[in-house]
Amino acid sequence: MSASDRLSPCARIGILGGGQLGRMLATAGARLGLDVVIFDPQQACPASRVAAETITAPYEDLDAIARFAQSVDAVTYEFENVPVEAAREAARHAPLRPGVKALDVAQDRITEKTFLNENGAPTVAFRRVRSADDAKVGTEDLGVPALLKTRRFGYDGKGQAVIRDVPAAANAFVTIGEQPAILEAFAPFARELSVIAARGLDGTIEIYPLSENVHADGILRETKAPARSNKALRAEASRIAEAILTALDYVGVLAVELFELEDGTLLVNEIAPRVHNTGHWTEAACRVSQFEQHMRAVAGWPVVDPAPIRKARMINLIGDDVDAWADWLVHPNAVLTLYGKRQTRPGRKMGHVTLLDD
Amino acid sequence: MSASDRLSPCARIGILGGGQLGRMLATAGARLGLDVVIFDPQQACPASRVAAETITAPYEDLDAIARFAQSVDAVTYEFENVPVEAAREAARHAPLRPGVKALDVAQDRITEKTFLNENGAPTVAFRRVRSADDAKVGTEDLGVPALLKTRRFGYDGKGQAVIRDVPAAANAFVTIGEQPAILEAFAPFARELSVIAARGLDGTIEIYPLSENVHADGILRETKAPARSNKALRAEASRIAEAILTALDYVGVLAVELFELEDGTLLVNEIAPRVHNTGHWTEAACRVSQFEQHMRAVAGWPVVDPAPIRKARMINLIGDDVDAWADWLVHPNAVLTLYGKRQTRPGRKMGHVTLLDD
Repeated sequence: MSASDRLSPCARIGILGGGQLGRMLATAGARLGLDVVIFDPQQACPASRVAAETITAPYEDLDAIARFAQSVDAVTYEFENVPVEAAREAARHAPLRPGVKALDVAQDRITEKTFLNENGAPTVAFRRVRSADDAKVGTEDLGVPALLKTRRFGYDGKGQAVIRDVPAAANAFVTIGEQPAILEAFAPFARELSVIAARGLDGTIEIYPLSENVHADGILRETKAPARSNKALRAEASRIAEAILTALDYVGVLAVELFELEDGTLLVNEIAPRVHNTGHWTEAACRVSQFEQHMRAVAGWPVVDPAPIRKARMINLIGDDVDAWADWLVHPNAVLTLYGKRQTRPGRKMGHVTLLDD
Repeated sequence: MSASDRLSPCARIGILGGGQLGRMLATAGARLGLDVVIFDPQQACPASRVAAETITAPYEDLDAIARFAQSVDAVTYEFENVPVEAAREAARHAPLRPGVKALDVAQDRITEKTFLNENGAPTVAFRRVRSADDAKVGTEDLGVPALLKTRRFGYDGKGQAVIRDVPAAANAFVTIGEQPAILEAFAPFARELSVIAARGLDGTIEIYPLSENVHADGILRETKAPARSNKALRAEASRIAEAILTALDYVGVLAVELFELEDGTLLVNEIAPRVHNTGHWTEAACRVSQFEQHMRAVAGWPVVDPAPIRKARMINLIGDDVDAWADWLVHPNAVLTLYGKRQTRPGRKMGHVTLLDD
């Protein structure tokens, strides 16, 4: 990385997406002196209230995307479902970090798993599904239970159906809206883990401690870090993360969600080319949070040893959970983060708490 | 403190002043879900770039102050030289925390020292100076060296002159602009210490560990925390801080700058009714930083044990010091904060570094 690739302090960083991840990226950037410009279709999105400037327009408005990208020194994104056309347009006017390839891979579950397997990152077996019949044949092939998921735009458990016997396969295809889909073999996992990793413009890779995650209804509830682990497990998680970052020529923070099987085998569940809910604990418990690390990489600055300081347990505040905010304020180990969302809805991520040394 | 005094998350907090202190308060508030509105005479001030909204107008524009205060749920200030008239106008439209009294006391060195002594907080001996003759008589009285300071609007060593012998007194009065002044006896201090303390709306007081400070040319260079201290010293510092907070019926964070004499006696140098440069280390090294603590108090939320986690050394980046930013980015113990100031000027505070466990 030459000094000329390094943006100056006071540089302007554009973020596609202005939800809570954009908000936490913006405040981390601000601490480093950077000015953040948010692009989001929603007026008064959470990140807009901590940004130097906000452009409100649909992602399909490529003129607005172009103006946005021309007004900044580098562009990043806070979520993987940014339309690729918008990302491509932005990349014509400013360095896009991470690049379009990471979006391409992460937006399509078949492309993603194919990419992972080709790069030495094992996953469950899977089949392409374009019809009810494909679903049936695939289920016979992979066994039950199996998971049918839309190829694109699924998150937090949406667009998914569990198939518990072969005759249910056709119905599952209807349930997910008869869209192009992937059928995945069930992973008999012992634990869900994740690893947050960062790669700088110069190829330097830094990896955060493994986290152990608990989901319910497809939504992350809790993360414990560091996860109980042995050296071999940590080495394998790091190997997988490094292989993915390198194959994508990635710049920024990436999350790898993993299944740990009973025998210690790790399979990749999915990747997220962005800062990640299972890395929120890093803000309260590491010297360099995932948010700072990402902004460093996007600015062409060095990524560094995050220096985890404390054990942490992160608890998501989902929907009404947030009503307990005042209790968390006086909890002796808690660091409370609220996302500034004015409407509570069931299943909506409203904030999180990190318990230190819990 | 009743639940009704407690502002809701997503409440709007107004801050008079948009420098680096306002900027750090705004990002701490954002983490708690609060929206921050900045009032500052300068366009594109550092805090404006992390705030939900900014009003740019002179402090003398009381209509603008009124509109600002009407648009928020509570008002605070980031520096003690906010014109009292502006603060008073704001307080007509929203709770002002801390209140006007703290400004009145802190803006005038004679009022301040009189208030301190009346409330059991010892200071150096001092004399009121309105003429060159007063300066001469005062110097004869207090001995040399003595310090002549303008009564109002001094900071970072400005508006001060050292008097080394009686004949120099008249000239010193000219040097500081023949303004109403205070003559202070010299404190033969062994160390400069400070204590950051917070008081909630319900009267709860929380005190951060003592810090040890090094100044040069009247500007803070370094803070070490916690300062080497024994129990008696800590108890006396806490007693002084509590006496001041209680006498002011204070809500928010206040800094008390102290001289420690050779025999361990503590004298108050000055107080700052706001978050303070000697408390910047708390952001990287405590569970609850001075910035969060202040925003909690202003929102009517509980102030809590800040739970210091790490030893810290804070180094100010003044003027050209900031040119070393890229070196600090890769220092293994450093947490870097830059204030987003676009122009470097000699003596200007551009950022700071907190070294953990140094």
